[in-house]
Amino acid sequence: MTRTPVRFAVAVAVAAIAPLLAAASAARAQAVDPQTIPSTYRQVADRLIDAAVANQHAYERLGELVDRFGPRLSGSQSLEKAMDWARAQMEQDGLENVRSEPVMVPHWVRGEESAALVQPWRKDLAMMGLGGSVGTPAGGITAPVYVVSSFDDLKAHAADAKGKIVLFDAPFVSYGRTVAYRVNGAIEAAKAGAVASLIRSVASYSIYSPHTGVMRYDSAVRKIPHAAITVEDAEMLHRMQDRGQPVVVHLEMGAKTLPDAQSQNVMAEVTGREKPDEVVIISGHMDSWDVGQGAMDDGGGAVAAWEAVRLMHDLGLRPRRTVRVVLWTNEENGTRGGEAYARDHAAQLDKHVLAIESDGGVFKPQGFGFSGPDGAMPIVQQVGKLLDRIGAGSVTRGGGGEDISPMMHEGVPGMGLQVDGERYFWFHHSNGDTLDKLDPGQMAECVATLAVMAYVVADLPEPLPHGGSSR
Amino acid sequence: MTRTPVRFAVAVAVAAIAPLLAAASAARAQAVDPQTIPSTYRQVADRLIDAAVANQHAYERLGELVDRFGPRLSGSQSLEKAMDWARAQMEQDGLENVRSEPVMVPHWVRGEESAALVQPWRKDLAMMGLGGSVGTPAGGITAPVYVVSSFDDLKAHAADAKGKIVLFDAPFVSYGRTVAYRVNGAIEAAKAGAVASLIRSVASYSIYSPHTGVMRYDSAVRKIPHAAITVEDAEMLHRMQDRGQPVVVHLEMGAKTLPDAQSQNVMAEVTGREKPDEVVIISGHMDSWDVGQGAMDDGGGAVAAWEAVRLMHDLGLRPRRTVRVVLWTNEENGTRGGEAYARDHAAQLDKHVLAIESDGGVFKPQGFGFSGPDGAMPIVQQVGKLLDRIGAGSVTRGGGGEDISPMMHEGVPGMGLQVDGERYFWFHHSNGDTLDKLDPGQMAECVATLAVMAYVVADLPEPLPHGGSSR
Repeated sequence: MTRTPVRFAVAVAVAAIAPLLAAASAARAQAVDPQTIPSTYRQVADRLIDAAVANQHAYERLGELVDRFGPRLSGSQSLEKAMDWARAQMEQDGLENVRSEPVMVPHWVRGEESAALVQPWRKDLAMMGLGGSVGTPAGGITAPVYVVSSFDDLKAHAADAKGKIVLFDAPFVSYGRTVAYRVNGAIEAAKAGAVASLIRSVASYSIYSPHTGVMRYDSAVRKIPHAAITVEDAEMLHRMQDRGQPVVVHLEMGAKTLPDAQSQNVMAEVTGREKPDEVVIISGHMDSWDVGQGAMDDGGGAVAAWEAVRLMHDLGLRPRRTVRVVLWTNEENGTRGGEAYARDHAAQLDKHVLAIESDGGVFKPQGFGFSGPDGAMPIVQQVGKLLDRIGAGSVTRGGGGEDISPMMHEGVPGMGLQVDGERYFWFHHSNGDTLDKLDPGQMAECVATLAVMAYVVADLPEPLPHGGSSR
Repeated sequence: MTRTPVRFAVAVAVAAIAPLLAAASAARAQAVDPQTIPSTYRQVADRLIDAAVANQHAYERLGELVDRFGPRLSGSQSLEKAMDWARAQMEQDGLENVRSEPVMVPHWVRGEESAALVQPWRKDLAMMGLGGSVGTPAGGITAPVYVVSSFDDLKAHAADAKGKIVLFDAPFVSYGRTVAYRVNGAIEAAKAGAVASLIRSVASYSIYSPHTGVMRYDSAVRKIPHAAITVEDAEMLHRMQDRGQPVVVHLEMGAKTLPDAQSQNVMAEVTGREKPDEVVIISGHMDSWDVGQGAMDDGGGAVAAWEAVRLMHDLGLRPRRTVRVVLWTNEENGTRGGEAYARDHAAQLDKHVLAIESDGGVFKPQGFGFSGPDGAMPIVQQVGKLLDRIGAGSVTRGGGGEDISPMMHEGVPGMGLQVDGERYFWFHHSNGDTLDKLDPGQMAECVATLAVMAYVVADLPEPLPHGGSSR
């Protein structure tokens, strides 16, 4: 996931007008007595859960994806090959309306890159250029480093940063807060006259692993190269500065942004038996950063969503409404897939009953975070009871996903799978995001959790009340 | 630490003859009533503990060491500069008999090295050549990979390994067992006709970090290059093979062994007030692998031992016998420091009352493992009671250290600091072995633990019973 604070703030702001929409659909919702949901759907839910946890099919399919195609950055051949493979596999699965919808995506390439400590002693620094960064001039940049702990620290010592490579050694507090240095660090460093900027990787734990991710420029501020080094090296350079040791770094980055590239969202369905034009979306994103395997972020989420729909198909379950799995492109550095879908399907969004995304890893599932009208909460919470047997029955306020946020912006209720994310930021956007970090049994439970929620909401006699969250 | 199983096995075997020595000194030991130790030494032990935990001096000194000199492989300038610095600092500390004793050490250099997956898709593989390995021919080796899970697996499929790069994907069971693939993997792979061998890093957890360490050749078997890749990549290559995907790797290593280099053990003392020729050794090793900072293995142990002696000096505590801190050279790939000491001091070893080493990290201390005569156990266990207030009072059977094992071999009782080592093999011999992995408060407690044990044993009215362990 990218989960930039800005986009989520927009979704919440728009949600404030949603009660108007919610009120309009409240009358419809009255027809569903939430209390009857667990007993009505217990049998089918148990069938889905039992089938999901009976084998390791989801994990094996994820292994195929990540071991055959590797990481899948927007604009890369590996992403498009993986998308083509998924579409072909969905056909083989026997899913319905299998198709691609075209999306033009940003095409940033990392190129050759390296960083080295030059003073006080020579040492290679593990690093990753940040997505969207410009490269260095040929031959790289060699400059003294000025280490700061925060944006405030930089502002207070802006004169010391001029002509230097600024290093933001900001300890991980939360992703939402600490990612600001990755997203906006180059802008703030350039304002102070820095020649390049480095960040301490946005990671809650490190065994010397750099972490990449998206960054931004401001059109009014000079673009300088921006890269992440490890937590270990950031702390060491900071200690050296505090001790009065001179710190000089050589940085070389061949990064550049090419013209937008052709990509695709891939989707398939179990078409609804009564109201095929009413849709429950279940989704994850296929693109990843160009490091590791993109297994946790978000190959696992994409495959889990896909497998949930395959399970319904294999069990011969066809709900009243359509369940559509979408494998998004370009979550990581543009959200062009989610935006294209919301734009291309604008006329049908009022028939999109719910959009679910799994983009927080497929670890032990806990339930869902939901953003939608108040009237929908008791319903989805009763559906959650069907998942209590695997400990995944919690449905709490607030949640969604980067790719479904353009839809949520238009009033479609959104839901994000919640899992035990304790180690999520240990691996996120690093070479450590590999298949082995996931557990086959936990992933199967995520499939079950997604399948039960999607199936039951798609099958309810009346659609879920529409509109955004009142908070 | 290296802790190769062979050396420890030798120490244990020799220890079997130790009861003879122990019996000879049993009469002397009777004069010490172990039960009186806690009350006799409570006050001085509390002074040492209170002084150790009053500040972060040990951690700051370790920071100076690892940030100023970096990693310190035998034969490197950084090791000798660090040794010279330590000796000068010991003089400044006011310690007595500060000196170096010369040691010739192996001089292996890593050179430029890299590995890349060539088939089924192109990917750089993080790797580390193993200490002592030969390099590849110029231009490297490109060959299909054959993955095995164990030596037995290799033997059962030896024909499949011929002409290939053998990869040992042996999951971590325990260091003692799993390190066999690092130590002997090149020999067994070469016997099967392999052109090079790779191991899954010997690590109990990984965020894509390769781990180095010592390896061996057999003079009767062809020498082939031997390197470690990450747990993640080893598992991926194994899955690819299981899936029938062709796996081809390019390996390039500039490793070579140069003529032995001049090094040194550095030592200093608080000289005994009554029996200066009777000695308690307290020690850690200054050399490390050429990666990370060697902060945990074993800069922390070396500095903790040093600081324990400095504390005695600063508090004006002078025990009956001499307490000598030794900063060993060449623990990692030769144990030449420990061997030179035992050889050069052979005539005095019967007056070496106890040798302590800290080489398991300076995490939360738990106590000591002791290898010595049965008659000594109740005594050192009573000393341990003085450490119960910081939870470090456990003294159990069995323990020592690689550098003190040559002395232990000659009958000197040995003792190893025991700490909470849960994450030790997460960082061991990797770029993740850096200062930040240690905690200043825990390190101070390790200093206290070493200081109390060394001081009290050095001050007892009668020397500790001599001789090795009966088990």
